[in-house]
Amino acid sequence: MARPEGERGIIARIRQAAGSSGDLVVGIGDDCAVYKTAPDRLSLVTTDTMVEGVHFDLGWHPPVHLGRKAASVNISDIAAMGGLPRFALLSLALTPDLGRQWLAGFMAGFLAVLAEHGVVLIGGDTVQSGHESMFSVTVLGEMAEAELITRKGAKAGDVVLVSGFLGEAAAGLALCRLGLVHDSGWQPLVGAHLDPVCQVTLGRVLAASGMVHAMQDLSDGLATDLAHICAESGVGAVVAAERIPLSPLLRKAAETCGQSPLEWALAGGEDYQLLFTAGEQQVAPLRKLVGEKTGRELFAVGRIVEGQGVFLEEAGRRREISYRGYEHFR
Amino acid sequence: MARPEGERGIIARIRQAAGSSGDLVVGIGDDCAVYKTAPDRLSLVTTDTMVEGVHFDLGWHPPVHLGRKAASVNISDIAAMGGLPRFALLSLALTPDLGRQWLAGFMAGFLAVLAEHGVVLIGGDTVQSGHESMFSVTVLGEMAEAELITRKGAKAGDVVLVSGFLGEAAAGLALCRLGLVHDSGWQPLVGAHLDPVCQVTLGRVLAASGMVHAMQDLSDGLATDLAHICAESGVGAVVAAERIPLSPLLRKAAETCGQSPLEWALAGGEDYQLLFTAGEQQVAPLRKLVGEKTGRELFAVGRIVEGQGVFLEEAGRRREISYRGYEHFR
Repeated sequence: MARPEGERGIIARIRQAAGSSGDLVVGIGDDCAVYKTAPDRLSLVTTDTMVEGVHFDLGWHPPVHLGRKAASVNISDIAAMGGLPRFALLSLALTPDLGRQWLAGFMAGFLAVLAEHGVVLIGGDTVQSGHESMFSVTVLGEMAEAELITRKGAKAGDVVLVSGFLGEAAAGLALCRLGLVHDSGWQPLVGAHLDPVCQVTLGRVLAASGMVHAMQDLSDGLATDLAHICAESGVGAVVAAERIPLSPLLRKAAETCGQSPLEWALAGGEDYQLLFTAGEQQVAPLRKLVGEKTGRELFAVGRIVEGQGVFLEEAGRRREISYRGYEHFR
Repeated sequence: MARPEGERGIIARIRQAAGSSGDLVVGIGDDCAVYKTAPDRLSLVTTDTMVEGVHFDLGWHPPVHLGRKAASVNISDIAAMGGLPRFALLSLALTPDLGRQWLAGFMAGFLAVLAEHGVVLIGGDTVQSGHESMFSVTVLGEMAEAELITRKGAKAGDVVLVSGFLGEAAAGLALCRLGLVHDSGWQPLVGAHLDPVCQVTLGRVLAASGMVHAMQDLSDGLATDLAHICAESGVGAVVAAERIPLSPLLRKAAETCGQSPLEWALAGGEDYQLLFTAGEQQVAPLRKLVGEKTGRELFAVGRIVEGQGVFLEEAGRRREISYRGYEHFR
């Protein structure tokens, strides 16, 4: 999701001061923190906070969908490393105007997504807030150490792949802002914003394949998320504009909203598709495996290169797009 | 800390719907959730959210102390079950007016408490908020399964013990509200509110002793926290007013503020002392052990009885005080 300016700087400073421990496998700077709990057994943990008016708008976000989204975006961080989500904790800070019916809807959605993934709610708290509601979700997962996929393993020559259409959630948000949340023709896009799907099964298949070098989920948009993989792996990337998967409905929505579909895809965020890299020889076997196990298609959108930074090639021109978020993109 | 009316009802409903899992040892309803990660090895996890204007006041709470408190109150939940705290995650939602200097102070305090307990910061996020700042902290701990102390084990006939003076933090809060935060004579009380101490070492000693039947930390006040132990254990309790440890400074502050020192102790919350029960024969050996290992005194304040509810005996009268919080007490 869109983050405030300067978050990367804050995180970099905190990361330096965070300390370390012998059983810590991955600390700050990936989708989850990862630590060893037994020989060859890892625990994964992630937390995310969503703030009213910044990350969601109660005017158009039904409580059931908001509850579903709160669960999905956190489970997605476990999926992004190939883990199996197991347990969740939920902290709610709610303004007094959100009554029992709203909370019942939110919890129904939250618990439904947990149940879909076999995740058990094990704790949390509820507190009051004055002017804006917020919730923080923590999800714990587990996996075999040999299957872990971090952001660090991308190699020059790797193909960059994504697991589905991009920009859908950004288009849905734009449509909601235009008051079109109930317009039936836009539901695939509106739904991508209100109720995104986390890719747990795909993440598990990719992790077990042993063929993926680096992975994360697409929460902040391809320009930012690929820049994270590049920075952690010490490489650069070149993305081909014409290879980015854009749905026909997205192109139609872009016309309606007067926006660029490509910019939604690069910088919109919140798609929660998986972004990963693999050696060129692994792409065909990966496509076959993923098709057999999940029925899904993979889209090759670019290449990992030596150097640093993420570049977009479009109509023969190349421009840097590293870390460019939705608000700051154009 | 003081919680909004109705939180217990919300939690009861959520607890019913939360699901279960074979390796889950303790779910919703204790200081931490607890699950098995290896034979005889448990992981503990707890999360807590603090909201500006509800749980803290930036007008008198220096950022360093607030950061310390955010860490301490969560580590205290691990201590309350006898666990060893290991890892922390921090989610910050900050209003734009809190600049770099404020954040640097907060993080310095937060990381200092983590370092004091050997806890490593492994993740979290920072987001913007519009009108009020909030933070959510998640702490993970570990311990041997045989040493776990929950809220469930209290037995009729047990002695109820606390690990230190009560009401100090409530008195400190009252003094801050009177503008006396910088008054040097009140610093022990003001400090108890601004920078409470979590009892990790004592919790570990009690857990290893094998002599404690039920335990939790005193976050909401003796009246509420003992009611939790009683409800989970299926017993009642009787507290003797004259046995509750009140410091001379607390009595003096109560005069200054026109408050009852006993009510601060029963219903003030945020003391983060440990509250626990043990068989009568174990009290003397426990006192000896705790004195040797920590130099601390234990205070016997009451008895576990058959039945239900928490009762206060004062000057020959008995009245029920179960779950009575600071705001609703008088």
